[in-house]
Amino acid sequence: SSDSNLIRATLFPGDGIGPEIADSVKQVFKVADVPIEWEEHFVGTDIDPRTQSFLTWESLESVRKNKVGLKGPMATPIGKGHRSLNLTLRKELNLYANVRPCYSLPGYKTKYDDVDLITIRENTEGEYSGLEHQVVRGVVESLKIITRQASLRVAEYAFHYAQTHGRKRVSAIHKANIMKKTDGLFLKCCREVAEKYPDVVYEEVVIDNCCMMLVKNPASFDVLVMPNLYGDIISDLCAGLIGGLGLTPSCNIGEGGIALAEAVHGSAPDIAGKNLANPTALLLSSVTMLRHLELHDKADKIQDAVLKTIAEGKYRTGDLGGKSKTTEFTNAICDHL
Amino acid sequence: SSDSNLIRATLFPGDGIGPEIADSVKQVFKVADVPIEWEEHFVGTDIDPRTQSFLTWESLESVRKNKVGLKGPMATPIGKGHRSLNLTLRKELNLYANVRPCYSLPGYKTKYDDVDLITIRENTEGEYSGLEHQVVRGVVESLKIITRQASLRVAEYAFHYAQTHGRKRVSAIHKANIMKKTDGLFLKCCREVAEKYPDVVYEEVVIDNCCMMLVKNPASFDVLVMPNLYGDIISDLCAGLIGGLGLTPSCNIGEGGIALAEAVHGSAPDIAGKNLANPTALLLSSVTMLRHLELHDKADKIQDAVLKTIAEGKYRTGDLGGKSKTTEFTNAICDHL
Ligand SMILES: CC(C)[C@H](C(=O)O)[C@@H](O)C(=O)O
Ligand SMILES: CC(C)[C@H](C(=O)O)[C@@H](O)C(=O)O
Repeated sequence: SSDSNLIRATLFPGDGIGPEIADSVKQVFKVADVPIEWEEHFVGTDIDPRTQSFLTWESLESVRKNKVGLKGPMATPIGKGHRSLNLTLRKELNLYANVRPCYSLPGYKTKYDDVDLITIRENTEGEYSGLEHQVVRGVVESLKIITRQASLRVAEYAFHYAQTHGRKRVSAIHKANIMKKTDGLFLKCCREVAEKYPDVVYEEVVIDNCCMMLVKNPASFDVLVMPNLYGDIISDLCAGLIGGLGLTPSCNIGEGGIALAEAVHGSAPDIAGKNLANPTALLLSSVTMLRHLELHDKADKIQDAVLKTIAEGKYRTGDLGGKSKTTEFTNAICDHL
Repeated sequence: SSDSNLIRATLFPGDGIGPEIADSVKQVFKVADVPIEWEEHFVGTDIDPRTQSFLTWESLESVRKNKVGLKGPMATPIGKGHRSLNLTLRKELNLYANVRPCYSLPGYKTKYDDVDLITIRENTEGEYSGLEHQVVRGVVESLKIITRQASLRVAEYAFHYAQTHGRKRVSAIHKANIMKKTDGLFLKCCREVAEKYPDVVYEEVVIDNCCMMLVKNPASFDVLVMPNLYGDIISDLCAGLIGGLGLTPSCNIGEGGIALAEAVHGSAPDIAGKNLANPTALLLSSVTMLRHLELHDKADKIQDAVLKTIAEGKYRTGDLGGKSKTTEFTNAICDHL
């Protein structure tokens, strides 16, 4: 059933509410006539009865081959020694940049109505090295690793993104006044790359000050690029400004041109299977995947339909204060297509 | 000129606007009849012409002996190899906890009107170890050190603070899902201390989620305790919620019962000496010093006068959108005493 005009994309529906929100994306893509054929794989914390595995080699190969994919939420398998599947995917696929467009949704009121920024997080090293040990009893240490290679790579991605998306400014977020060597190297790499992009304004902002400015005036930022943990913190802070992780798209960029879009919210086991989940984050993530494929017409169409549906407010899921089922909300989006 | 009924307290006016805002505190204390005698020392980045020093031994001894002090902003001396004076004071005086009460100021409008929380930051170790090195060219590492001793000490301070200040809940902020050993040890220590305070609710919140919750609903927090860098980030984020560092009091607690209150904003060299600075942060910090001395009547009186003056809005300095001089604002506070 493979059509050679179709682009093959990997789909990992994931755990909990994952399959329901993935269904929503499939339906919307069908109605919007998106020329994508899904290659679906189970990756999640319920052991797949057929493979007895959380994550198969075939699932990874599928992304490596297709170079584009979409993933739902994945929890961490229970029991000692298991690593988060999210982290495993980042590592195995070398997903070096996590990109999150974060913008106020018209009609969904929060305290902020002028958020329009992009966080770009280095996604492979820093505080996530996994290198930790006890020095003596009662004294433990963790290593933060910063490399020139990974810093240049993410900086290059950020400036290229800014330039190709009509963005004017890149802010490197750091704490180099304290971590002079690690964050200092990160900044040095950003400066080197900045030189190659004279049209993009470059600035450096200390992380504590950045967080203060974000809550006072998020409009003062455009594109932010930063080491792993700062990205983890700031991207969630920014999501909070516009309403939470249920509304925030995310896309991971890997070596060799891989783009794995993902909903970054949890798997919400309490409401799983009840047709109550909000598919917005996965839908808007799928839009970032379409943009990566340069299917901008389809991306615009779907994004507009999602935003319109939310703005109208007639169909909203419980997390947004509404009473709609996942399928009702999805149907409303399809009506706007 | 020493009166034995007076409590001696050290005063470091600091750099830039420091002397002006320190004058404001001195005036308010005099009018409010606070039984304190200041022992003033110069600590700052302009070399003291008499001592040729940024920080004298006598200045440190003064705090050690008096056990209470107030400091204005201090910049970092220019030139390689100089360490921030703030960090030097933390180290030399073993200031292990930075405590920042953060509450919405009635009448000074921000997006939030229901902030009322306390951030308690471990102030001696963690990401501030200063241990960094290059492994090979292009690969650098920083060490984050967490010790049982420092974690227990700050946790003990946080729970004791909660209990003695009518606070109901302590949230430990961490990233132990990633830094399992370092942040894991921090949490273990918090749990041990929590057991001794059955009346105080204890919870653990991952830092990314904490930042998201803080911007969505800061009223969901009460007392927060955390390792050094998270405290640096979150305390500034919280300051942003209520209007900025110019309004936020801060107090450092050291071994042996030392309390060194401080304004955590910058030294603002651009407006120094022009009678334009806002003394609010230093005044509210001096209030935390008075509470530490259990001079609650004086503390209440001064805090009320400052808040009333801001709420009335007739006299406000430029940073708050007003046109008042430092001295006019200070006189208005004194009129409320
Ligand atoms: C679940 C956790 C390991 C993960 C992270 O810290 O990266 C999450 O917070 C995220 O941002 O994807
Ligand atoms: C100036 C800087 C070294 C300092 C810190 O990081 O601790 C500051 O941000 C603070 O919070 O006092």
